[in-house]
Amino acid sequence: MIQTDICIVGAGPVGLFAVFEAGLLKMKCHLVDVLPQVGGQLTEIYPKKPIYDIPGYPSVLAGDLIKNLEEQIAPFNPSYTLGEKLTEVEKLEDGSFRLTTEDGTEISAKVVVIAGGLGSFEPRKPGLDRLLEFEKKGVDYMVKDPEKYRGKKVVIAGGGDSALDWAVYLADVASELALIHRRTEFRGAPDTAQKVINLAEAGKMDLFLESQVSSLEGDDHLSAIKIKNKAGEEVLRETDYFIPLFGLSPKLGPIAEWGLDIDKRAVAVDTRDYSTNVEGIYAIGDINTYPGKLKLILCGFHEAALMAHSAAKIIYPDKKTTLKYTTVTGVEGLG
Amino acid sequence: MIQTDICIVGAGPVGLFAVFEAGLLKMKCHLVDVLPQVGGQLTEIYPKKPIYDIPGYPSVLAGDLIKNLEEQIAPFNPSYTLGEKLTEVEKLEDGSFRLTTEDGTEISAKVVVIAGGLGSFEPRKPGLDRLLEFEKKGVDYMVKDPEKYRGKKVVIAGGGDSALDWAVYLADVASELALIHRRTEFRGAPDTAQKVINLAEAGKMDLFLESQVSSLEGDDHLSAIKIKNKAGEEVLRETDYFIPLFGLSPKLGPIAEWGLDIDKRAVAVDTRDYSTNVEGIYAIGDINTYPGKLKLILCGFHEAALMAHSAAKIIYPDKKTTLKYTTVTGVEGLG
Repeated sequence: MIQTDICIVGAGPVGLFAVFEAGLLKMKCHLVDVLPQVGGQLTEIYPKKPIYDIPGYPSVLAGDLIKNLEEQIAPFNPSYTLGEKLTEVEKLEDGSFRLTTEDGTEISAKVVVIAGGLGSFEPRKPGLDRLLEFEKKGVDYMVKDPEKYRGKKVVIAGGGDSALDWAVYLADVASELALIHRRTEFRGAPDTAQKVINLAEAGKMDLFLESQVSSLEGDDHLSAIKIKNKAGEEVLRETDYFIPLFGLSPKLGPIAEWGLDIDKRAVAVDTRDYSTNVEGIYAIGDINTYPGKLKLILCGFHEAALMAHSAAKIIYPDKKTTLKYTTVTGVEGLG
Repeated sequence: MIQTDICIVGAGPVGLFAVFEAGLLKMKCHLVDVLPQVGGQLTEIYPKKPIYDIPGYPSVLAGDLIKNLEEQIAPFNPSYTLGEKLTEVEKLEDGSFRLTTEDGTEISAKVVVIAGGLGSFEPRKPGLDRLLEFEKKGVDYMVKDPEKYRGKKVVIAGGGDSALDWAVYLADVASELALIHRRTEFRGAPDTAQKVINLAEAGKMDLFLESQVSSLEGDDHLSAIKIKNKAGEEVLRETDYFIPLFGLSPKLGPIAEWGLDIDKRAVAVDTRDYSTNVEGIYAIGDINTYPGKLKLILCGFHEAALMAHSAAKIIYPDKKTTLKYTTVTGVEGLG
């Protein structure tokens, strides 16, 4: 069982900065994130993207901002559980919390801070009968290891970069490959779209445009799909795998079941300290909502600071919190 | 008459960042500051001091933070009135504001944002009868031009750097000089304190330790002071000038007279947009107060962002404000 003062759920920029604000007040933090590294979306999705609205940075790459935050919090030695999804939060009689991940890791904390960003990103799923029945039995929403598909029959659906990139890659891996797209235009990079068209013309894959999957067939594993083509006809096609790549959609995830007040798919908080309706649980950053809320990283930093000063009253109930100005010193007249 | 969308009173870090947030929403800003350069205290008082609590900066010199903020807001071309003290704010019938400085500069703005930090810094004054009567008639609280004292009799009071530095400087300028200090120890730099002692021993100035000024004498101009020395005796000393240098104390200043709700020497605001009780006037940064308020620069940045989104509704009443994420793009599934 991991013991900590504050368990921060989400290791994005706001979760990381919360370690700094907590550290200034002598509180120890443990961070949990479903992603295998810190930084949230900034590291996972757009590490090389310049950001322009971090105060004091005319421009900073998302990945560099995360590196700087890691350096800033290093003196406070946070600990981490990465690559694990938090599934349960239990409030104990003494007011503390026991948190459990789906891998069975247990964390004991006096305060829980949800810094979950837009929530976990979950794949967009097509509306098809028997879809859930075939999940992990022929239906995959992301390609984790392309070798899984070597020598197999594969159907990909989608028109964005993921669908195009994997179609190009799997053309040499799968025994038979089809790409199905509802329109004639692709949303992905034109260069990759051209590659797909070339592969189709060379007979390396079948391309179904203005088409969509209409049903899934099979017994205990997917064995075929029906494709409704642009002529409106239903075509049966044998396949071992169906991979719909329709993008990721942010979801609140299991947090929705923790008994917190939820408003517009976000956690409602009190702006005096960004506390939720459950004493001891705070929510900061893009995952919370309150009158005037803006989903900006810089707002999450502010919320982290006020949260820490409030959490200190729970963790050190007898100690008066003194605000250490790191900016106002040296003014003779203030001495 | 200067015309602007938003007049920002105070060009410290929070006032500067407000230009950025306003600029993103197509609003033009004019900044007014009593100091002759931007940056507030960070430039005026501690430009070489490292700051540790700006998110994403493990350490940054105060002066460098200001330079970076200036670079960040440069694309939005703010205009400035520097080195002038704002004295009047008048709300006109159409809801806009006319602001006037003590030098007569007039600014017309639809929105006023007070970003005045700890307020203006005013000299600490000794508690002496007739002190106000002799202000500008022999009593000065700061040395603006030392040549004013050439060939004159001068008495300085104080034990900090300002008192020591000016005592050393004026020893060669004044015809007679005395330094009066309540204690035997100086708060200023030991090296300068030693210089003062050397000058006193060389007969270039008179040093009164464990002493203080007990009264001011004169008709329409100061002509003498009484010094209560360490033996408890009152000594009369002729002088043309008395310069008490007891440091600077932050004061709310003329803002206190603008009809704003004041709480604990700060401007009370609504946390949904940091608006004051006067429609069209906002207060951000260290000068405001609300439940949970922390006087941190990073909190002022957040307040600036929410203020700008609210001000946009005043300046563009018919336009829907759209939040431009500069961070969340490129996520295929969010398109």
